Amino acid sequence: MASWVPWVVAGVSAFALIDAALYARKVLKADPGSERMQRVSASIREAAMAFISREYIYVSLFLAFMFLLICVALRSQGGWMAALCYLLGASFSLLAGYAGVTVATRANARTAQAAIKGQAGSLSVAFSSGAVMGLTVAGLGLLGLTICYLIFEVALGLSNSISIIIGYSLGASTVGLFARVAGGIFTEAGDVGAHLVQAQNEPMPDDLLQNPALVTLRAGDYVGEVAGMGADLYESYIAAIIAPIAISATGIVFKKLSTGGMILPLAITGAGLACCILGALFVRTKKEGGRAVQRAMTWPVYGSAALATVSSFLLIWAILKWNNIGLFYSVMMGILAGLVIALTAEYFTSSHYSPVRSIALGAGSSGAIAILQGFIFGLLSVAMPILIVAAAITVSFITANRVIPGGGGIYGIGLSALGMLSITGIIAAVDAAGPVASNALDIASDSRLDQRAIDVTRDLASAGNTTAAISKGFAIGAAALAAIALLAAYSQVTGLSRIFLISNYKFIVGMLLGALVPFVFSALTLKAVLRAAFVVLEETKRQFRDILGLAEGAEGVVADSRRCSDMTAKVSVYQMLLPGALAIAAPLVVGLLLGKESLAGFLAGALVAGFILATMMANTGTAWANARKFIESGSPGEEEESTREAILIADTVGNPFRNTSSPAMNILINVMSMVSLLFVPLFMH
Amino acid sequence: MASWVPWVVAGVSAFALIDAALYARKVLKADPGSERMQRVSASIREAAMAFISREYIYVSLFLAFMFLLICVALRSQGGWMAALCYLLGASFSLLAGYAGVTVATRANARTAQAAIKGQAGSLSVAFSSGAVMGLTVAGLGLLGLTICYLIFEVALGLSNSISIIIGYSLGASTVGLFARVAGGIFTEAGDVGAHLVQAQNEPMPDDLLQNPALVTLRAGDYVGEVAGMGADLYESYIAAIIAPIAISATGIVFKKLSTGGMILPLAITGAGLACCILGALFVRTKKEGGRAVQRAMTWPVYGSAALATVSSFLLIWAILKWNNIGLFYSVMMGILAGLVIALTAEYFTSSHYSPVRSIALGAGSSGAIAILQGFIFGLLSVAMPILIVAAAITVSFITANRVIPGGGGIYGIGLSALGMLSITGIIAAVDAAGPVASNALDIASDSRLDQRAIDVTRDLASAGNTTAAISKGFAIGAAALAAIALLAAYSQVTGLSRIFLISNYKFIVGMLLGALVPFVFSALTLKAVLRAAFVVLEETKRQFRDILGLAEGAEGVVADSRRCSDMTAKVSVYQMLLPGALAIAAPLVVGLLLGKESLAGFLAGALVAGFILATMMANTGTAWANARKFIESGSPGEEEESTREAILIADTVGNPFRNTSSPAMNILINVMSMVSLLFVPLFMH
Repeated sequence: MASWVPWVVAGVSAFALIDAALYARKVLKADPGSERMQRVSASIREAAMAFISREYIYVSLFLAFMFLLICVALRSQGGWMAALCYLLGASFSLLAGYAGVTVATRANARTAQAAIKGQAGSLSVAFSSGAVMGLTVAGLGLLGLTICYLIFEVALGLSNSISIIIGYSLGASTVGLFARVAGGIFTEAGDVGAHLVQAQNEPMPDDLLQNPALVTLRAGDYVGEVAGMGADLYESYIAAIIAPIAISATGIVFKKLSTGGMILPLAITGAGLACCILGALFVRTKKEGGRAVQRAMTWPVYGSAALATVSSFLLIWAILKWNNIGLFYSVMMGILAGLVIALTAEYFTSSHYSPVRSIALGAGSSGAIAILQGFIFGLLSVAMPILIVAAAITVSFITANRVIPGGGGIYGIGLSALGMLSITGIIAAVDAAGPVASNALDIASDSRLDQRAIDVTRDLASAGNTTAAISKGFAIGAAALAAIALLAAYSQVTGLSRIFLISNYKFIVGMLLGALVPFVFSALTLKAVLRAAFVVLEETKRQFRDILGLAEGAEGVVADSRRCSDMTAKVSVYQMLLPGALAIAAPLVVGLLLGKESLAGFLAGALVAGFILATMMANTGTAWANARKFIESGSPGEEEESTREAILIADTVGNPFRNTSSPAMNILINVMSMVSLLFVPLFMH
Repeated sequence: MASWVPWVVAGVSAFALIDAALYARKVLKADPGSERMQRVSASIREAAMAFISREYIYVSLFLAFMFLLICVALRSQGGWMAALCYLLGASFSLLAGYAGVTVATRANARTAQAAIKGQAGSLSVAFSSGAVMGLTVAGLGLLGLTICYLIFEVALGLSNSISIIIGYSLGASTVGLFARVAGGIFTEAGDVGAHLVQAQNEPMPDDLLQNPALVTLRAGDYVGEVAGMGADLYESYIAAIIAPIAISATGIVFKKLSTGGMILPLAITGAGLACCILGALFVRTKKEGGRAVQRAMTWPVYGSAALATVSSFLLIWAILKWNNIGLFYSVMMGILAGLVIALTAEYFTSSHYSPVRSIALGAGSSGAIAILQGFIFGLLSVAMPILIVAAAITVSFITANRVIPGGGGIYGIGLSALGMLSITGIIAAVDAAGPVASNALDIASDSRLDQRAIDVTRDLASAGNTTAAISKGFAIGAAALAAIALLAAYSQVTGLSRIFLISNYKFIVGMLLGALVPFVFSALTLKAVLRAAFVVLEETKRQFRDILGLAEGAEGVVADSRRCSDMTAKVSVYQMLLPGALAIAAPLVVGLLLGKESLAGFLAGALVAGFILATMMANTGTAWANARKFIESGSPGEEEESTREAILIADTVGNPFRNTSSPAMNILINVMSMVSLLFVPLFMH
């Protein structure tokens, strides 16, 4: 039934990759700017690449270890196939990240240069570089998954293909976890390190070539927000696709829908990718100004979402026929929930609305007030996402259960997660454009381009903040839905369809332990940021002391930014190992020691605590960051030194929240679900 | 079987109340100090009483509303009896709070005066005033519960007595919630308000009679840490006793143990209270110095715990005979878990250990670093409590299930919570001595007593910080265990012994919503603190402006502290209504709209999230507060203005965490469990 669908999906994926190549060519053909701009850009690129090469070495070692672990632990279940797919999923993610960063690091000076001529051209360069990342992520992710599906499902039959597809997904998630965590640590090491340099009254030249801390900070934008975010969305994307596939491969869903239940997720994602390719064509603006560019970057997202909704309706009709059309509500609720989460994030974090404004006002009273207010709004901002996800679960479950009585409900929850992430391509694209724009703003200021160019790049950078909030909302919302679907799949596989609450304390013990993990994980990543930040501080101080003329800002003297970034990268990558190992080891330990019932509770506890904590940390941190921008852009209060210092503290506290701990949380949840699912045979005795 | 036990327990309770009266007489007979000291003390007492009277009016109105609600909603289940017991539980709590505050507010100047002669006398006055609170809380709590038990169990039979006992417990919890929340808001309004006055460069005289913000702050010690804490421990105490009683009243436990299963909890608590009365006799010291006084206040706690362990062993042997002695492990694990949680809190919050010291060191770099480090340690501090509670659940369940196969495990979890709180009397006593001591320190400084008196009171106040950490640890740990036991009781009553995870999405939806509540609750209480703090700021500014000579500190001019406190009390009490209503309404709404399965998930989610959040907020906040004390007591860094400012911000952020949001969380969990249990008939159709 509809066996040609995977081939079409593979075709769409391949086309997305070609499209990405075209966008890349467009970026590289743009004017790279003056010699100084090129030098600054090169120095940032070198710093970012110093990180990427160190990260890839460590990640490869870890992947090799996991490859062996899967082969050995699952040797009697044909683990080598899952292990191979694990490597495939991981390599494609590494590849996408590399491609994205390579192009994006070449786009910053070009975006600044294009800004001299006006907004349209500048937007085009920045977005094109983001599109390379977005389309490569979605294209490679979907292509690899389709390949796995075709080879193994067709060649080996259904029951094997699930653990194989989960292997692929776990590979993607492993890379995502490390890229997000290490990238987040590196980014914030630059940020907090630069803050420390300033707090210790060291010289802090604006000149990017003379300030290693600032270059590390700028390179961090790429490492965290391009490579890290790309790997993050890549893994969420895959996890959301495999959740309904895994569920529909066996049990009641398979009985009712046969292979159609497995093909539908692929088809919806393929169509979603096509919608993204189409939506990307509309990223353009005729009007000038901040609002116009913000619209130009957000409306294609909403447009792609609308197109994806319509096409999923048609696909369900075509593949599963009219009597199964009830499944459409699940997909629709997922897309709707993603939008609501994103809009909530925007409300709580944009300086157009009252939360950020009252934080800025509070900073006028005292830093403590600004910090407390940030927490209050961050805590409150959790309510709407939880309510809409609860609604999405309820509606998806009930409607899907009507279509497939007696167990189809969870398939609906899976489709819901899938719907939310089917437009990953465009989300990643507009998101990756953000750091390019904020880099361009720095280069424009550094090279003293005219005011117009600075204004254009600032508008672009500000729009990028909003798109970042949108993409984080999608990622965490989808992770929550996917994790619930995976939990259900786990319960199905382990035969745990009934959890005995009374006669089984194990569930609640697991819940407690599971809820603990996101908190400890946050602590470890925050701790790593501080450790790496002190490396930036010490190395920057050393360079100002040892490099003759640097502290005085003598003409022609340049700092050794590469060395600073490399040292920071070394610490960051090393520090990611403990939280990374925690994510892999915790479910294994719980499963082996306390059994499969506790592991079910563990996954439930982790998903609930992680969802809430991630949302809170992201929104609190972003609200502080935007309150600072609001104050510095000339709102009342700017004149006062104490207000600026107050909001600076809040912003410095919040940056590691929003850029390090929070964005890794959705991956943490997915990794733990996938490890549990993959290693199920170990917990069954 | 052992029907004389309740009578003996009632006798012990009555004896505790007589003992409390003796302690009160001891306090009142002590030298009240100079005229100025008496005036300051009176002004703080007036401020505290202004709050108490406002609070009691609002609480009474709310209690009347709840009385009617219970009568009407449960009219066909004989709700009037549960409603009457509800009032009894609530009134006894109000009575205990009133008695405790009345004596404690008279003890501050007396403690300072006694300090002139030396440590032993000063400790004796402070502890005696605490003992009034501790013994009244435990005595009245247990006496009331025993009365309910005797009247209704004997007169009406078992099945009615459960809802009646739960009514009693819910009454205690309602008062506890409001006292903790409103008290916490009031306390921190004084604290943050005083901070704001300073941040706005207003005059900030040390003279307590001339500074309404400082008097409000000092009155807040009583309102939050004596009355609030007393009502808090009162409700935890009752909840921990009724959990095993409710479980053992029906089902498999009753079949096996008959009424012995219900009498045992009463007996263990009665014996625990006797141990506390005994332990209180050993609060004395011969040596001078901080370490000696800390020991004098903590060792009786450990001693009472040891005595309670032994006596519970003997009681299980006597009441349930040797073949049921396995239940002893549950009690023992509970006591052990309480101690481990308390020691963890001490490690993460005492300036003798590395966490607080590194926060203090971080403050030397920047306020943001100190804040981030506080979070890191706060997040990490959650691990040990979760692990020990998980261990306590596991051991209690397994061992109790061996004694009573097929369902006895949850009775064991209930006994575990009970064990932890059986020594509430002594815990409340040493805890309530803390605020008296810190008040005494302020009065000693204000009246320029000699250095020795100041040192003695400072040592006492510092020991009080540690005992506060211990009592918070006990309260939240016991709430988690009691909530699990109550959840189990709920599942038993609703026939939800099997939760269908796959075929029932409702559980996970409930979990998400339940986990949300502690976060929203924190946001609402923090918001209330800010609102009330601005009242303190504005009123203090107004008084400095309007009262002639106040701002200049003219001789004989005094501020109108009563008015300031009264205005703050008005806002605080009003602001408690929303979070209070949330706690009562949320489980009702979930139960009515989504059904009993969702409500089970809701309770599970709330307990896990609340436990973790409460622990984290308490330890983070206390660590910052003690880091500030550490810096101000002359650690390296004190000389620098910027370090002091940095830690001041962290401390101001942390105080509402540890004194407002966190301590109310355990009550929140208990209230929601009890509301669910009491109103079960509404969700059953």
